[in-house]
Order: sequence, then structure tokens, then C-alpha cells
Amino acid sequence: MAICLLGLGSNLGDRTANILEALRLLRRQAQVIVLRHSSLHETLPVGGPEGQANFLNAAAVIATQRWPAELLAILQDIEAQLGRKRTDRWGPRTIDLDLLLYDQQVIHTPELTLPHPRMHERRFVLAPAAEIAGDLRHPALQSTIDELFTRLPPPSPSEPKLRVFTSAEGMQRETLRLRRLSRRVGVVPTMGSLHEGHLSLVQAARERAEVVVATIFVNPTQFAPSEDFSKYPRNLEADLQALSAAGCDYAFVPSREEMYPEGSSTFVEPPAVSQPLEGVCRPGHFRGVATIVLKLFQIIPAHVACFGQKDYQQAQVIRRIVADLNVPIEIVVCPIIREPDGLAMSSRNRYLSPAERRQALALSQALGEAERLVAAGENESETIVAAMRNILRRAGITRIDYATLADPETLAEVPRVEGRAVALIACFVGTTRLIDNRLLGPENWRA
Amino acid sequence: MAICLLGLGSNLGDRTANILEALRLLRRQAQVIVLRHSSLHETLPVGGPEGQANFLNAAAVIATQRWPAELLAILQDIEAQLGRKRTDRWGPRTIDLDLLLYDQQVIHTPELTLPHPRMHERRFVLAPAAEIAGDLRHPALQSTIDELFTRLPPPSPSEPKLRVFTSAEGMQRETLRLRRLSRRVGVVPTMGSLHEGHLSLVQAARERAEVVVATIFVNPTQFAPSEDFSKYPRNLEADLQALSAAGCDYAFVPSREEMYPEGSSTFVEPPAVSQPLEGVCRPGHFRGVATIVLKLFQIIPAHVACFGQKDYQQAQVIRRIVADLNVPIEIVVCPIIREPDGLAMSSRNRYLSPAERRQALALSQALGEAERLVAAGENESETIVAAMRNILRRAGITRIDYATLADPETLAEVPRVEGRAVALIACFVGTTRLIDNRLLGPENWRA
Repeated sequence: MAICLLGLGSNLGDRTANILEALRLLRRQAQVIVLRHSSLHETLPVGGPEGQANFLNAAAVIATQRWPAELLAILQDIEAQLGRKRTDRWGPRTIDLDLLLYDQQVIHTPELTLPHPRMHERRFVLAPAAEIAGDLRHPALQSTIDELFTRLPPPSPSEPKLRVFTSAEGMQRETLRLRRLSRRVGVVPTMGSLHEGHLSLVQAARERAEVVVATIFVNPTQFAPSEDFSKYPRNLEADLQALSAAGCDYAFVPSREEMYPEGSSTFVEPPAVSQPLEGVCRPGHFRGVATIVLKLFQIIPAHVACFGQKDYQQAQVIRRIVADLNVPIEIVVCPIIREPDGLAMSSRNRYLSPAERRQALALSQALGEAERLVAAGENESETIVAAMRNILRRAGITRIDYATLADPETLAEVPRVEGRAVALIACFVGTTRLIDNRLLGPENWRA
Repeated sequence: MAICLLGLGSNLGDRTANILEALRLLRRQAQVIVLRHSSLHETLPVGGPEGQANFLNAAAVIATQRWPAELLAILQDIEAQLGRKRTDRWGPRTIDLDLLLYDQQVIHTPELTLPHPRMHERRFVLAPAAEIAGDLRHPALQSTIDELFTRLPPPSPSEPKLRVFTSAEGMQRETLRLRRLSRRVGVVPTMGSLHEGHLSLVQAARERAEVVVATIFVNPTQFAPSEDFSKYPRNLEADLQALSAAGCDYAFVPSREEMYPEGSSTFVEPPAVSQPLEGVCRPGHFRGVATIVLKLFQIIPAHVACFGQKDYQQAQVIRRIVADLNVPIEIVVCPIIREPDGLAMSSRNRYLSPAERRQALALSQALGEAERLVAAGENESETIVAAMRNILRRAGITRIDYATLADPETLAEVPRVEGRAVALIACFVGTTRLIDNRLLGPENWRA
């Protein structure tokens, strides 16, 4: 068996999917065993036309009984299967597979040069390779990958820094490594389809931590069978580009199988604050949220986690879980980010037709009316709720899950606004369920 | 308000309880606020008669409007309430309360010397003080507590090293500190009432980690109302002495309120492997186990945790929880420790009358018979289980919760021993419920 080091890169299409698919095709080859692969490192394109997209680059270590020329043919075949056209030498490509090292062989033929001639000077090759194969030796330079990597000049400030992990074990190992280096870590759990609200959470995490990890996972266990799990918007490429631009350091993008492997059967039974409101309307929802959030906090044992106040009850549920289960993480709840006209930003807003988009304004208007009434001295919940419902109904919203005033910690309904309270609304605009909320009370306070 | 540093010590009776009670009495004083207190450090007695027990020492920082002489009187009153006799200057004492610092005051009267005259040379004073008040200054020596502590000569090898934490927050902070120092941490969760089986787990943890934390907590949520929670044996003093002798570094000894404060309502819903056997006989038991173990793994984020194979199903449940929830900890399951005659060690064995103690031998004998039958080529579960039950019944054991052969991972009953299996028994000997198990199969394997 020969031990080989491969380089993988993609800067066209869904780059993550392309690299994972190349690894999957490689695993299906007879006499090829993929021993491990690195995370995906975002890097600037080298050469080629201006304005090319950034690459994601990875490395893999394989064991094989194939000869170098056979292995090269396999790699080229996988490139072809993934739509790579070899006509434009420096153009964008769905996939680029390079044979970097084949045991300690040194080969110079027109078809193949081993070790790969430029690997020792390329950060985008050595950084992922050092992650998984630091001890492998370059036979010509008599140095290990680690040594070659350490000798590189420092990265330019314009170099992107995002790294994408798809494996829980790799992400966890990296986070624990960062903690050993005394780096303060912040995490922003998301379901992707990122908007300004999410990016404000990344910003909040950057203000509180040296390293920021965003997670992207549409969690099936928090959707009921009747809900929109399968049609929930997904656009990993746009999300990764937004995270990179926002200065995020890591994205954790696991598959469903990675998070819920066959046989997985432990769940977190959420606290009492999960029972009213969403707990009534979406049975099982918070059990799924509680479980995935606890899992993410174990995979990414960060110092601080940022959540949006938009999902007010969720934030209170998570605070309570963290307190009840002694999870050593600080929970920060960040203000709702709204469109200029007041609509709370949500990934689900993109479901709305233009007419529904106008209707949806009634949520923030109803909450604004509640705030106005309280400021004017009204404190009877009945009166305030009636005004909120009126605004929703006048906008043509008839399917109201709840429009209520609640205690900000327990989320129990309050008959009267005394001190702090929260106004919360969940309703359907067309077939789209939207939620929004506003903090009420005598002074400015934060969730 | 004056900021004061107090020293607390006990080497008689339940030392932990004495110190906690002194703090409780102090909190009840008007114009005294206990700001924080340290963990309890085990130390050798200084002076006095030979053969005195080791001390537990702690420090507390308080804020007070009382004058020094008033505060001294309060401390002496609390000593008297806790049974301290001041006749024997160096004798063992239930409690010793010292006023070490009172702001920056320097006082020399026959009744009171401030700062305490020997504090700067005493490890048993400075170690706990540095834990909570490293920045306080000694007014005469113009040094901080941290500086005085650092200047001490290194502790003698004979000095005990056990530290007792009663607060989850303090224990967690200390474990995270150890991890930042790259110390490998092992944890041994127990319900106290320690026997050789527990101490073998401490030993196993010492072999796998540089620092060992044992936890002692009789977890109410894993007992059904009908079970023996209130009469479960408790002997903290003996447990701490055993842990100290076994070379344990830390004991975590929380109160019920510390682990389940008012309003705590998040639980872990245990995995499928929790459902058969104990899951049938003790409904809710594994929900309590799952919850407390997850909490302990958050409070003490160790690298490795050791459990006994005696609670075989529990060990499988915990392994599954750790895998399902991605907890970054290695679970080690250690062999059952038995009395010379074969009885598996258990804290509940002390409930047994001499006659019951003889009856109880039938459990290990029945499991030995199962092993013998399998070794002799028998593989029908029905035959083997009948033989096991026969041995139990012949010993007069009639209340058998189960005597069964199960798959070692899922714990589902197996009709036949093919490859690995586990024989498990749970039955009542008198009113005492005992469990035991044995690994069966073609080769030696470990749980």
C-alpha cells in the first residue's frame, strides 16, 4: 500500500458539495482507501483571469495499491465526472484534484511530476495538508509538510481566512485546540440562508471573541412533519461568501448523517419555558432546538454564543438549558434586525409574494402599537392585545397562532404590564408562518 | 464597608459541613456580606498532639460595617455554636475562624493582631486565600496575597493535595483552568459511600490523566419515590479520607440545591439502550442518570471519565449519550471489583444482614454458572437463564427483576449466545435490590 497526499480545490458552483462529492467518488474506487481529509480552506485564486471566485481547498490522505499513473487517471476521471473542463488552464473549475505525494517516489514524466512541483511554496496546498498530514515527508526537500508550512511567508492580509468543517470530530478538535491556545471562541448557530440579522450576530461574536465559528445546519428534529423542512431555503455558496465577507473564521456545515447518525437516540427535554406559545403551536420544536444546540455547544465548546432576539422564546429556552445543564458558555441575545419598513428579517421572508410582503408589515406595526399604548400609560393586556389583533386583522391576517403579552423570563401570559414584559406575535401570512416580538416596559432593557 | 479576609479550618467531625455551616451562620449576621469563599484545601495539622486528623481549610472574603473587635466576637460566637472548645490550643477543632485582613488596618492588641501574624508563612492560609483574593494587599508587607503565596517554599511531598469544591461554578472554573494549562483531567462520578470498586476507578483515572476529580452526589432524580434515596448511605468524611489516600486531587461535593436550583427543569431524555432491564424496573432512573452525568461533564469538562462495569447498562447508556450529544470525553468502563467470595462490591451491600449477605452470593454464582455453561458449549439462552434462576431460587431469592442474556450494546435479550453477550441479574435480597453482570463470549473482551 502506498500512502498518498492529494490536494482538492473548487471555485465554481457549490464548492463544498464539489469537494465532498469528489471524496465520495474516490471512496468508491477499488483499492483506494480515504484515510482522512482536511477542512476546506478558502483561498484566493492563483493566476488566471481577473475576478475569479475564491477557492475552497482541502487535502486528503489515501492508501492505495494503484500505481501513480493509474491513480492520476482516476483523479482525472473524477474531475471529468464533476464537469471539469481542462481547456482553460487557469479558469474557474468545479474541481481540481492534484496528486501531491505518492509515498517517497520522485517521478518526472510529461504526464506526472512527483512530488507536485509547486506544492512546497503554496499556502493553499500546505495549510490543509498540515492539518491532517504534518508528519509526511517531501522526498526531494527532506522536510515534513509541517516544516514546509512553517517556512512559508505569512499570509497577506487580503487572504481570506474562512475554513469550512463538515465533520463534527474535526470541528471539535479544532475548537479544543483554539481553547488550548487561550483563544476566546464565539459561536453563531444558524440554519443558513443568511441575512443581515445573522451577520449582526457574527459581528456581535467578533466583538466578544477572537475567533468566530458560524454553524449552518437545517435541523430536521425541530421541524414537525407538516412543516417546511424540505422547502426551507438553502444556499450554502451564498452563505459561505457572506460569512467570509463578515470576517467569520470558521463555518461548521455538517450533513444530516453527521449530526444524527444511525442509532442516535438521546434528546434534550427542554425546560418549562419551552411549553407556552411556540411549545403549544409547534409541539416537539423546542426538543429539536434543545438537542441540536446542546450538540453544537459540545462540538464547538465556545466561550460565548450569540442568538437573535427575533426568536425570543428560543433564546430564553437556550439560556435556561445552559443554566440547568451547567454548560460553560455565555449566551448573548442580540437585537432584532429589521427591513427599513420595520419587517423583522427572516429567512422565511423570501417565501412571501409582493402582496404578502406588504401584509407582513402588520406584525411590526401591531408590536409598535403595543409599545405606544404602554408608553401612553395603558397596562391592561386585554386592551393592548385587542389593539394588536385589530391591526393584524385589518391587514387581512386571520390565522394568528398568538398575539400576547408575556413575562420576559417564564413567557407566561401576563394580565397587566407591570415592569418588564414582552409582546409576541406568531401568525400566518399566506402559507408562511412569521414571528416577531418587542420588549415592553418602563425603561430600555435588553433581552 | 470594610473588605475582610477570613480563614476557616476544621479537623474534627464532618469538616466540610462544619465549614459550610460556619459560612451559613456568617451570612445570617447583620451587616456582614459573604462575597465569596474558596474551595476546601486538605492540609496537615500544624503543631498540637501527634496523630491529629488533617484539616480542611478555606478562605472567605466578606464586606462588613462591623468594627474589627465586633467581627472577632462574631467569629468566636460562631466557633462556640459549632462546638469549638478553646481550652486546648493546638487540639483538634470542629471549626477555627481567623480574621486575617481587615481592609488595610494594622492592629496590635492582646485580643487581636491584624494582619494575622503568621498568615504570610502559612500555605494552608495563603493557598485558599490566593484562590479568591489574590489581589488583596497585606498592609505591613506591602505585597499581594498572590505574591506572598508565590514566595512560599514548595509544598512537602507528604502534604495532602485534595481540594473539595462545593460550588459548581468554582469546580468548573478550576477545571477550565487546568485545561488551559494543558493538564489532562479525569473524572470519577460517584454517589459516595465509597468502596474498593470506586477507588479502582480513581486508580484507573490516575493512570489516564494527570489530575483526577471524584464527584460525590446522591442524585435525587435517579431515585423513584419508592426507592432508597433518603436512606442511601452517606459518609462524606470517610469518603474524603479514602479519596485523599487514593491520591485524588479534587472532590466535587455539591448540595442538592447546587445541582437542582429552584426552577431547574431541563432533563436529558436517555437513549434507546436505557429502555430494557433497569428501564423497565426503574422508570425514570436513567433520565435522572443521564441528566446528572451530562451536568457533571459540563461542570467538570474532563478528558476521560471512569465508570464501573457493575452498572453495565448505565455504562452503555452513558457511552451512547456521549456519542449522541457529541460530548468531548472518553468513557472508560472498568472491571467489577468483588469481595473475596465473589459478591460484587456495592454501597448497598451494607444494608444486608449476615444471612442476606450469604444469600447475596447467589448472584455471582449464577453468573459464574452462565459463564461455565457457555464455555462448555451451551448457547441456548433459555437453558442458561433457567440455570441462573435456579441458583437464585435455591438461595431463597424469589423477587427477581431480571436474570437474562443480552446484546452487549443494545441490551436487547438474545435467544442464543453467539459471539459476545452479557449475563445480567437484578434481584432483591431481603429488601435490598442488588445487580451484577458478567461478560460472556468466545474470547476475553472488555466492556
